[in-house]
Amino acid sequence: MPREITKFFIEEIETAIELNDATSVLTNLEELYPADIATVLYELNAEKSKYVLDLLDPEVSSEILSGLDADTRNNFLKNFTSEEIARYVNLMESDDAVDVLNEQNVQVREEVISLLDNEEKAADIIDLLHYEEDSAGGLMAKELIKVNINWRVGQCIEEIRRQAENVEQVYGVYVVDDKNKLLGRLGLKALILANDSTPIRQLYDPDVISIETYKKDTEVVDIMQKYDLDSIPVVNAQGKLLGSITIDDVLDVMQEQAETTMQLITGVTENIEEDDSIFRLSRARLPWLLIAMLGGLVGARLIKVFEAEISLVPAMAMFTPLITATGGNVGIQSSSLIIQTLANNSIILDNLMQRLLKVILVALINAVIISGLVLSFNILFKEDLRLSFVVSTALFSVVLLSSVMGTVTPMVLDKFGINPAIAAGPFITTANDLLGLAVYFFVAHLLLL
Amino acid sequence: MPREITKFFIEEIETAIELNDATSVLTNLEELYPADIATVLYELNAEKSKYVLDLLDPEVSSEILSGLDADTRNNFLKNFTSEEIARYVNLMESDDAVDVLNEQNVQVREEVISLLDNEEKAADIIDLLHYEEDSAGGLMAKELIKVNINWRVGQCIEEIRRQAENVEQVYGVYVVDDKNKLLGRLGLKALILANDSTPIRQLYDPDVISIETYKKDTEVVDIMQKYDLDSIPVVNAQGKLLGSITIDDVLDVMQEQAETTMQLITGVTENIEEDDSIFRLSRARLPWLLIAMLGGLVGARLIKVFEAEISLVPAMAMFTPLITATGGNVGIQSSSLIIQTLANNSIILDNLMQRLLKVILVALINAVIISGLVLSFNILFKEDLRLSFVVSTALFSVVLLSSVMGTVTPMVLDKFGINPAIAAGPFITTANDLLGLAVYFFVAHLLLL
Repeated sequence: MPREITKFFIEEIETAIELNDATSVLTNLEELYPADIATVLYELNAEKSKYVLDLLDPEVSSEILSGLDADTRNNFLKNFTSEEIARYVNLMESDDAVDVLNEQNVQVREEVISLLDNEEKAADIIDLLHYEEDSAGGLMAKELIKVNINWRVGQCIEEIRRQAENVEQVYGVYVVDDKNKLLGRLGLKALILANDSTPIRQLYDPDVISIETYKKDTEVVDIMQKYDLDSIPVVNAQGKLLGSITIDDVLDVMQEQAETTMQLITGVTENIEEDDSIFRLSRARLPWLLIAMLGGLVGARLIKVFEAEISLVPAMAMFTPLITATGGNVGIQSSSLIIQTLANNSIILDNLMQRLLKVILVALINAVIISGLVLSFNILFKEDLRLSFVVSTALFSVVLLSSVMGTVTPMVLDKFGINPAIAAGPFITTANDLLGLAVYFFVAHLLLL
Repeated sequence: MPREITKFFIEEIETAIELNDATSVLTNLEELYPADIATVLYELNAEKSKYVLDLLDPEVSSEILSGLDADTRNNFLKNFTSEEIARYVNLMESDDAVDVLNEQNVQVREEVISLLDNEEKAADIIDLLHYEEDSAGGLMAKELIKVNINWRVGQCIEEIRRQAENVEQVYGVYVVDDKNKLLGRLGLKALILANDSTPIRQLYDPDVISIETYKKDTEVVDIMQKYDLDSIPVVNAQGKLLGSITIDDVLDVMQEQAETTMQLITGVTENIEEDDSIFRLSRARLPWLLIAMLGGLVGARLIKVFEAEISLVPAMAMFTPLITATGGNVGIQSSSLIIQTLANNSIILDNLMQRLLKVILVALINAVIISGLVLSFNILFKEDLRLSFVVSTALFSVVLLSSVMGTVTPMVLDKFGINPAIAAGPFITTANDLLGLAVYFFVAHLLLL
C-alpha cells in the first residue's frame, strides 16, 4: 500500500542527503512507489533531487522522471549532463522519452539522441519528434505488440514473448498484414482462451477503431472516452500501424484540458502551477486584469457622459455595482454552460435558434425574479420610485442581454476554431459590465429626464 | 471506423421509425457502434428511442443504456415496464446495473430486482446497492477474475475460461487465498508467457494497490491516476476482495468532477446539462444571482453612507465599476489557482505563510502595474488629481486584499471539508465587490475630506 508522505518524512530524507547518508536515503525510499518518490522530489531542490535519482536504480529513476510534470523535470535535468539524461531516456517508453527531449534545447536534444545506445529506440524517438506535441502522433508510443494475420496462436505467443519486455502494460495485440497495414485487434482474453494451433485469422476482431497521426489530442480523448477504449492504434494515411496511445496518456491530457479551460474562464492565460515563479504567475494574470482595467476606464468615460443624470439623481450611483455585477455573473454562467456543451460536442449545436430561444426563456425567468425582488427591496427602503423602476428595468434587460451575449460569443469563437473558454470569464464579464452601464444609463436617460 | 452522425442521418432514422419501417432502421443502425447509436438516441424522443432499443439485439441495447447519461436514461426508461428494464439489467455489468437501478424509484427498483432471472447477478446488485454512489463501493463492479494462490497456471487458465464470459475487458487476474483475502495481482502478460505447470505463487505480484469500499470516488481517481492503474481491486476492512473498478469508470468521474468544479466557479449550483428543463436551468443559476443581488443591494447601502463624498466629488461614481470589477477578477483568478492546487492535493499546503507571502508578492506586482497605469490614464484625461490618487490607492489595496481573500477562503473551506469551488466565482466576486467599494470610499473619505 502507498505510504503517506509527511512533511516530517521529507525533512528526514533531506537531512540524510545533507549528511550524504546514502544508505538511509535508500532504505527510506525503497518501500515507496515511484509516484511517491516523485512526490518527495517535488519538495526537494534540484541538487538534492539529483542526489536521489543518482542513488536509485536507473529503471526506477527513469520511471520517476517520466512521471514528473514538465516544469519540475526541466528544472531537475538542468543539473544533468547529456550522458546522464541519455542513460535515463534509454530506459523510457518512446512517448515519455520524446516528452523529455522536447523540453530540452536543440543542442542537448541532439546530444542525448546521439548518445542513446539502444539503436531501435533512437530511431523511434527521432521518428516521434516529427509530430506535433498535441497530436495523436505526439501522444503515441512506438512500443506495441503486433502479430501477422497469417500466424497461429502459437507463433503469436512466441512473438509476444519477444516483444513484451519493451511494453510495460499489454492491453491487446494488433493484427497487421505483411505490409504492416492494421487489420484488427486481438484481445488477450481471446488469446488466453485459444489453443496454439488456432489461426489468428479466425480469432482476431477486424472491427478496430484507429486514429490518424495528425488528429488533435483532444479528439483522441473524445474517441477513447466515447468508445471506452483502453488503448487505440495510431495509423498513417495508408492505414499502416505506427504506434498506440494508452489510456494513462489520455488521463493526463484530460486533466490538462480541464485545468486550461478553468484557468481561461477564470482569467489566467498561461497554464501555470502554483509553484511557478512569481513573475510567471503575475504575467499569466495580467492580460485579463488589463482588459478589465480598460473596460473600467471606458466605463468611467461612459458614466461621465451621463453626469447630467447622476447630478440630477445622485442616488443613481448607488446601483451601478448591482447592475454591473449581475451582468457579469449572468454572462459567465451562460458562457460556462455553452462551453461545457461545446466540449461534449453534442451535435445539437446545429439548431442555434432553438438554443437561443431556450437561453432567453431561462434568462426571462431569472430576470423577472431578480428585478422584481430588487424593486420590492427599493420600495421597502423608500428609494425614489422612478429610480427604483429605472434600476429594475435596467437589471431586467441586463440579465437578458448578458445571457445572450454569454451564449453567443463562445459559439461564434468556436465556429472560428478559437477556444471558446477564452471568451468566458473576465472578457465576457468586462463586456457585460459595460453593457450593463450603458443599459442602466440609457434607461435612466429615458425615464428620468 | 465510427461513422459521423449527421442531422440528415437522424432525420432518416426518424422517418423510418414513423413509417414503422423496422428493417431500414436496423440496416441504418447495424453499422454503428453502440456509443454512436446512443448519440442518435439523444436526438430522438423517448417513444422513438424505445422503438429503436426494442428492435436492437438486447445485448446492444443494454450496452447503450449503460452508456447513456443518467437524465436521458431516466427519461427513456419511463416508458419501459419493469419486465423490460429487468431484461436489459440482466445483461449489464453489475456496476452499470446498479447505476440504472439507483435512478429508479424504490418500487420499480424492487420489481426489477425480483424479476432478474440471473440469480448471481441479482445477489451482486443487491449487495452493491448498499454502497454510497460516490464511494469506491458505489463505483466497483462485482465481475472480476480471481484465482487461488495455491493453483498453477493451467487451473488459472481454466478458471479464466469459466469467468471470462461475464467480464467484458480483462485487465488482470486477482490472486486470493482460501478466505478470499486479496494477496496480489497476476498480469495477463505474465500469464501468457508462463507455462501451465508454473505455480501462481511464483508468478504473481504481491505488491498490489487496493482501495477500501468506503473511500470517496475522487480518491479512487487520484490513486488510479497517480499510480497509472488501469483497474484497482476493492476490498473490505479485512482485506477481502469484493470487486474492482476499471479505468473507464474513472474517466467518467474525472469528467464530472471537472464539470462540477467549473460550474461551481461560474456560479451554477446544480450539475446541469444544456438540455435540461428551463426551470431546472433557471433554478441552478438563481442562488448565485440572488447572493450577488444581495451583495449589490448592500453595496448600494454602503454607497449611500458615503453620499457626502460623492456629492462633493460626483466624478467618484465614475470609478466604482473599475474598482469592483478589478476586485472581482483578481479574486476569481486567485481562487481558481488555489482550487487547482488543492485538487492536485500537493502537500505543500502545510506552509500557509509561505504560500500567502508568494500570493502577496504576485499581487503586489500586478497592483503596482494596474494602479500605476490607471493613475497615468487619469492624469492624461485631466481628472481631478486628488481623485486620481484616491482611485489608484483604492485599486492598489483592492488587488492585494482580493488576492489574499481569493486564496484564503477556498483553503479554509477545504480545511473544513467543504468543496472550495463553492467559494470561488460569484461568492468571492460579490465579496470582493463590497470589499472594493468599502476600500474605495474609505480611502476617499481619508484623502478627500
